[in-house]
Amino acid sequence: MLDPLPLAQALIRCASVTPADAGALDVLEAALRGLGFTTQRLRFGGPPDGPVDNLFARAGTGAPHFAFAGHSDVVPAGAGWSVDPFAAIVDQGVLIGRGANDMKGALAAMVAAAGAHVARGAPGSLSFIITGDEEGPATFGTDPLLDWMVANGHRPDHCLVGEPTSARVLGDMVKIGRRGSLNCWVTVNGAQGHVAYPARADNPVTRLVRIADRLKARVLDDGNDWFDASNLEVTDLSVGNPTTNLIPAQAALRLNIRFNSEHRGSDLQRWIEGVVAEEAPLAEVVTRISGEAFITEPCGFTALVADAVAAVTGETPVLSTTGGTSDARFIRRLCPVVEFGLPGATMHKVDESVSIADLSALAATYDLILRRYFA
Amino acid sequence: MLDPLPLAQALIRCASVTPADAGALDVLEAALRGLGFTTQRLRFGGPPDGPVDNLFARAGTGAPHFAFAGHSDVVPAGAGWSVDPFAAIVDQGVLIGRGANDMKGALAAMVAAAGAHVARGAPGSLSFIITGDEEGPATFGTDPLLDWMVANGHRPDHCLVGEPTSARVLGDMVKIGRRGSLNCWVTVNGAQGHVAYPARADNPVTRLVRIADRLKARVLDDGNDWFDASNLEVTDLSVGNPTTNLIPAQAALRLNIRFNSEHRGSDLQRWIEGVVAEEAPLAEVVTRISGEAFITEPCGFTALVADAVAAVTGETPVLSTTGGTSDARFIRRLCPVVEFGLPGATMHKVDESVSIADLSALAATYDLILRRYFA
Repeated sequence: MLDPLPLAQALIRCASVTPADAGALDVLEAALRGLGFTTQRLRFGGPPDGPVDNLFARAGTGAPHFAFAGHSDVVPAGAGWSVDPFAAIVDQGVLIGRGANDMKGALAAMVAAAGAHVARGAPGSLSFIITGDEEGPATFGTDPLLDWMVANGHRPDHCLVGEPTSARVLGDMVKIGRRGSLNCWVTVNGAQGHVAYPARADNPVTRLVRIADRLKARVLDDGNDWFDASNLEVTDLSVGNPTTNLIPAQAALRLNIRFNSEHRGSDLQRWIEGVVAEEAPLAEVVTRISGEAFITEPCGFTALVADAVAAVTGETPVLSTTGGTSDARFIRRLCPVVEFGLPGATMHKVDESVSIADLSALAATYDLILRRYFA
Repeated sequence: MLDPLPLAQALIRCASVTPADAGALDVLEAALRGLGFTTQRLRFGGPPDGPVDNLFARAGTGAPHFAFAGHSDVVPAGAGWSVDPFAAIVDQGVLIGRGANDMKGALAAMVAAAGAHVARGAPGSLSFIITGDEEGPATFGTDPLLDWMVANGHRPDHCLVGEPTSARVLGDMVKIGRRGSLNCWVTVNGAQGHVAYPARADNPVTRLVRIADRLKARVLDDGNDWFDASNLEVTDLSVGNPTTNLIPAQAALRLNIRFNSEHRGSDLQRWIEGVVAEEAPLAEVVTRISGEAFITEPCGFTALVADAVAAVTGETPVLSTTGGTSDARFIRRLCPVVEFGLPGATMHKVDESVSIADLSALAATYDLILRRYFA
C-alpha cells in the first residue's frame, strides 16, 4: 500500500484556510487521477458564501458503490505555533501542521487505501466526495455536490466520512449519527423610560428573562437508545444600557439547541416561537437550523466498519452520536453514513498533529473496510 | 418683594454643569450677604467624587429655624437648543436656559422671599442649604453639609426643598416623601465550553436568567397610604459572547429597586443576596443604596405648605411621594422636610424653561409660607 505521509504533507503545504483552496484540491485530484479515477471539479455558488470549489472522483461504474467523504479546507492557524503551521514538519514520529488531524491526514489515508483497492481490480465503484468548504458556511459544498451526484447517476450505496471521530486513541469511537443544531435570535422591543416611572415604560428585559427561563426549564427529552438528551443553552444576552435609572427599549438573546432524533428542527422552532408569542407578542424571532439529527442504526455496514476498526487497532469502538455537526448530516439523505477518523485531541488547536503510526493504522483500517466491503 | 428674574438669569449665565461651579455659588452668596445673611462656603471631599463646593447661609440665631434647600449645579445642555442654553434669554414671557426649571428659578424665588422675610424683621432663623453637587454623585454635597450644620449648632426645625415638584401646573403637587432607590450588580461566573458538550461546561446564563426571573416575580408590596407599590426593574443584561457554538464564562445583570417605606434598603439587599446564593453560590453581588424611603406624614407643617400653595396658585396640591430621589432623602434625618417647586415638564430637556408668571407665583408662595411659618 502507498505511504500516506507524502500526500498528507503535500496537502498541508497548501494553506487552504476556508475559503482559500491554495491548490489543495489540485493535489488531491492529481493523486486520484494517477490511480485511474475519473475526476470532476464542481464550482458552486456566489458571494457571500461562495463560490466554492469541490471535487468528485470515481473509479468503476458498477455496484456496489462505496464513497469516501471529506474536506480539503482547514480553520485558520492562529498564533503560538512552535513550527510553521503549513510546513508539514515531521518531528519524532509526529506530523505537525494545520489540517494534519482535521482532516488532510485522513484524506491521504483514504487515497492510500484507494490505491490498494484499484490495484486489486475489485468490482463495483469507489468514489470521493470532497468539498473545499466544510469549516465555513458549507452552503455551496457537500450539499449541492450531492444534488449534482444524484442528477448525474452517482448515488452511493454507503459512505464513510473521515472526520476525526476517535476520542483518546485511534479506534475507540465510530460515529453513526449526529445531533441536529439550531441557533435562534430573540429580540424583545419595549418602551424606554425613567426607572422611577415604570408605568410609563415597558421593560423588555422582564419579558426576555421570562422567555429564557421558560425555554431552559423544559426537559426536551431524556435521550434515547442512540442519543444523549437534547440540550438548550442560551449563549448570549444583550441590552447595552449604561444608565442605572433608565428602563431600556430593547433586549436580545441568542440560544443554541443540540437535538437528537426525537425532534425535528422545525418543531423546535415552532415551540420557541410559541413561547415567545405568549410572553412578548411583538418580539422578533430568527431561527437557523444548521442540521437535523440523524442516525444510521446499527446494521451490517456499521458492523463492518466497527469490526475492521477493531481488527486493525485492537480497540472496540463505541458507536457514538456525540459532538458537533459534520457533512454527514447532508450525506445521510442519500445512503447510510458512518464516520471514522483520527483522535481529535489537537484539531483546531495550535500545533495540530497526527502520529505517523496513527496515519498508517488509519490507512490500514480504510483498506480493510474496502477489502471486506467489496469481498 | 424683589423680582426673582434678574437673579435667576445671573445664575443661569454661570454654566455650572456638575462638577463645575462657574461662579454660581458666588452669585447666590453675594445676593444673600446683601440681604444680611451670614454665609459659609464648605468644600468637601477629594477625587473622584469631589471636591464639591457648598454654601450655608443663615439670617437670625433664634428659634424657630426654617431652612430652604436646593442645588446650584445643572445637568449638561446637550445638543439641539433653539437658543444659547446659558444666555438666559426671555422670550414672550418665558425664561429659557439650562437650570431655569431645575432649579435656579426656585433658588431665585427663595432669595426673593428671603428678602421680604428679612425686611419684616421676623423672629427666628432662616437658612439656605445649597450644594454644588445634586445632579452628580452627591457624595460630598448636602449629606456632609448637614453633618457640618449639626456639629455647628445649625439644626433646622423644618425644611423646604425647591425641586420641581409640580406636575402639569404650578401648585398641583407637593412632595412629602420619596421612595428609596437601590442599584445592584450581579455577576455569575461559570465555565466556558463548546455548546455541543454542555456536561463539560457550566452556563452562567442559565443561573442569571433564573435569578432575574425570581427577583422580578416577587410582589414587593401593594403600596401603602402614602406610597405606590415598590418596583424592581432589571435595567441591563450582558454576556458579550459573539460565538454561536460557545457557552460563555460570565453573565451579568444590573437592577434598580424603587422602594417605599415598607422596606429598608439593607433588607432588600439581603433578600437579593439570598436568592443569588441559592441559584449561583459563587456569584458576585454589589449593591449601592442611594437613598432610603422616607415620609413626612401629613402634619401642621405639610398643611401650612399645602395651604399656602393653594392660596397663591388656586390649585389644591396632591401630597405625593412619586418620582425620583432628591436631597430631601438626606435632610429628613434632621427635621420634617417638604418639597415644592415648578412644573417639571422641561427639566433636563432641551430648551428648559420657566414662565415669568410661574417664577413670580413661586416667589409669592415661598413668601406666604415664610409669613405664616414665622407668624
